[in-house]
Amino acid sequence: MTPAPPLALTMGEPAGVGPEIIAAAWRALKEGPQPFAVVGDAALMRAQGVPVESIAAPADAARAFARAVPVLDSPLPAPVTPGRPEAANAGAVADWIEQAVNLALAGEVAGLVTAPIAKAPLYAAGFRFPGHTEFIAELTAEAPFAGVRGPVMMLTAKDLRACLVTIHAPLAEVPELVTGERVRRTARVVHEAMKRDFGIARPRLALAALNPHAGESGALGLEEIGVLAPAAAALRGEGVEITDPQPADTLFHDAARAGYDAVLCLYHDQALIPVKTLDFWGGVNATLGLPVVRTSPDHGTGFDIAGQGVARADSLIAAVTLAGEMARARAGQDSFSLRGRRWAGGPDEGAV
Amino acid sequence: MTPAPPLALTMGEPAGVGPEIIAAAWRALKEGPQPFAVVGDAALMRAQGVPVESIAAPADAARAFARAVPVLDSPLPAPVTPGRPEAANAGAVADWIEQAVNLALAGEVAGLVTAPIAKAPLYAAGFRFPGHTEFIAELTAEAPFAGVRGPVMMLTAKDLRACLVTIHAPLAEVPELVTGERVRRTARVVHEAMKRDFGIARPRLALAALNPHAGESGALGLEEIGVLAPAAAALRGEGVEITDPQPADTLFHDAARAGYDAVLCLYHDQALIPVKTLDFWGGVNATLGLPVVRTSPDHGTGFDIAGQGVARADSLIAAVTLAGEMARARAGQDSFSLRGRRWAGGPDEGAV
Repeated sequence: MTPAPPLALTMGEPAGVGPEIIAAAWRALKEGPQPFAVVGDAALMRAQGVPVESIAAPADAARAFARAVPVLDSPLPAPVTPGRPEAANAGAVADWIEQAVNLALAGEVAGLVTAPIAKAPLYAAGFRFPGHTEFIAELTAEAPFAGVRGPVMMLTAKDLRACLVTIHAPLAEVPELVTGERVRRTARVVHEAMKRDFGIARPRLALAALNPHAGESGALGLEEIGVLAPAAAALRGEGVEITDPQPADTLFHDAARAGYDAVLCLYHDQALIPVKTLDFWGGVNATLGLPVVRTSPDHGTGFDIAGQGVARADSLIAAVTLAGEMARARAGQDSFSLRGRRWAGGPDEGAV
Repeated sequence: MTPAPPLALTMGEPAGVGPEIIAAAWRALKEGPQPFAVVGDAALMRAQGVPVESIAAPADAARAFARAVPVLDSPLPAPVTPGRPEAANAGAVADWIEQAVNLALAGEVAGLVTAPIAKAPLYAAGFRFPGHTEFIAELTAEAPFAGVRGPVMMLTAKDLRACLVTIHAPLAEVPELVTGERVRRTARVVHEAMKRDFGIARPRLALAALNPHAGESGALGLEEIGVLAPAAAALRGEGVEITDPQPADTLFHDAARAGYDAVLCLYHDQALIPVKTLDFWGGVNATLGLPVVRTSPDHGTGFDIAGQGVARADSLIAAVTLAGEMARARAGQDSFSLRGRRWAGGPDEGAV
């Protein structure tokens, strides 16, 4: 049996918790089935107290993984002090992400996992994206993709997959941002992703309501009647199995979660409250509807605790595991993705 | 040891699940320390397959409770068909609530628990309140009360006490309804209730933010900076221990809940999502800041399942238990409440 193709794991903000949680994740996963190759600074990785092996190409990762952290070395220009981001290193942080995306587009890695980045130093260095997700969407915008293109942000916790219709909007702007078009597009991306990346033949989607009691027949808000129910009906008409808008407080207990494969949430906290209530440490952020598989931990850089050895790697470990599962599901569905097709075409394509 | 004073338990909508869950709650609680007297229709109670004893006054409830459901009988004028509310019975439903409130104000019961009511038949009969809470607030408006007057709605689940700054508002109206004055008034009611009704000498309150990431220093919304943080600072200045606004998704996991006694949530689903995710069946709705102790199950009349014997009584059982705890705490704090003072004055006052 050939080893699983590796994932690319970008090191993220070097002054944050990224390097130490990558070391912890490697310790937890080194005996497991899913290797990864770190895209980052090998010396900084070595400083975390783990064996490190610089590799020339991702294909070398699987062989090395059980004994050392495989690193595609791309050294930082400036020294790293935990908790103190250094503007001079921001360009390298962005380059690591771009390298990892290119490896995924070339079929050299099965997908990517991104450790947290800090926006302020990146913005100071000229980075012009709201975050990872939009940057990766842009880097893959020209790559062929057979499905409805996202990005859609999905958060997972245990058996919950919560997908966001709006993400980082002030609450006051949410009602106007929740349009029928946005709900339909998000649902189509999620429907396809459940099939392509999760191997679910007939995905069942739930739709959360905006207002308390799903608007109580209009008494507590009109968006359910005017926007959400019509969007759900249109989606069902095109073959997307999705519920009418449901009172959000009824969707997240154990029995409710068993009734759907993914839920569309309309705003950040509607998804993040149940995700982090159910599993504060092990949530994962996955990006759906891109030519590449991508997951990340659902936490930030942790500057306040970086370098102290107390950061928990639960979320990164879950992100690596989920990316591996998504990549294997996608690899079995050649018609959907660039990467799938490249693999089908043979491993000689796309060498670095 | 004298038995605990009984609670009054109103029967609620007779065509809903009220009668059957009251029967189930009695079976679960009849050996326990907290008796209740049902205010409702004795024949309908008997039809639930439980022994029933009509009593003349609440003082008889404790003696009867272990062997029968004590009922302060107030017969309905029209027959009851499960699932089909009857407008002719709506007046009696409202009367039961008024009777129970008067018994509590008179010190004959230690507090009240209200089974669910249906709004439509009550409105058809001329009832003019949004719900139980506002009706009970009106019925107790002239009663003396030493504290800051509510009502404030609190939902509980396991160790979570979530108190609402706004309740049944469309989401689009929430940002303008969340004023500093409303936050401060809610916090004062909750602060006093934690001391008076929960016996917590120095209550620690948490304040949920409105926007994702608590507004991220203004980038994702300004209400935290303009409204919530100033309200929290003012409250601390008057001796109410409350946090600055916290990202709502960080407030509800096990470790977070251990950090506060109650959390102020700004809108319905911000409180109800974690409550029902943590404990879908056993949540309780308690009304804080009234001259009387009052709790209720956090579910509705269940017309769709009424009379089938499948309704779960978990929430009503928890509501009776919580009302008993609150009443005992309040009884130990004479200075706060009318009922406490009446008790202190002797049981001969306030006979029906």
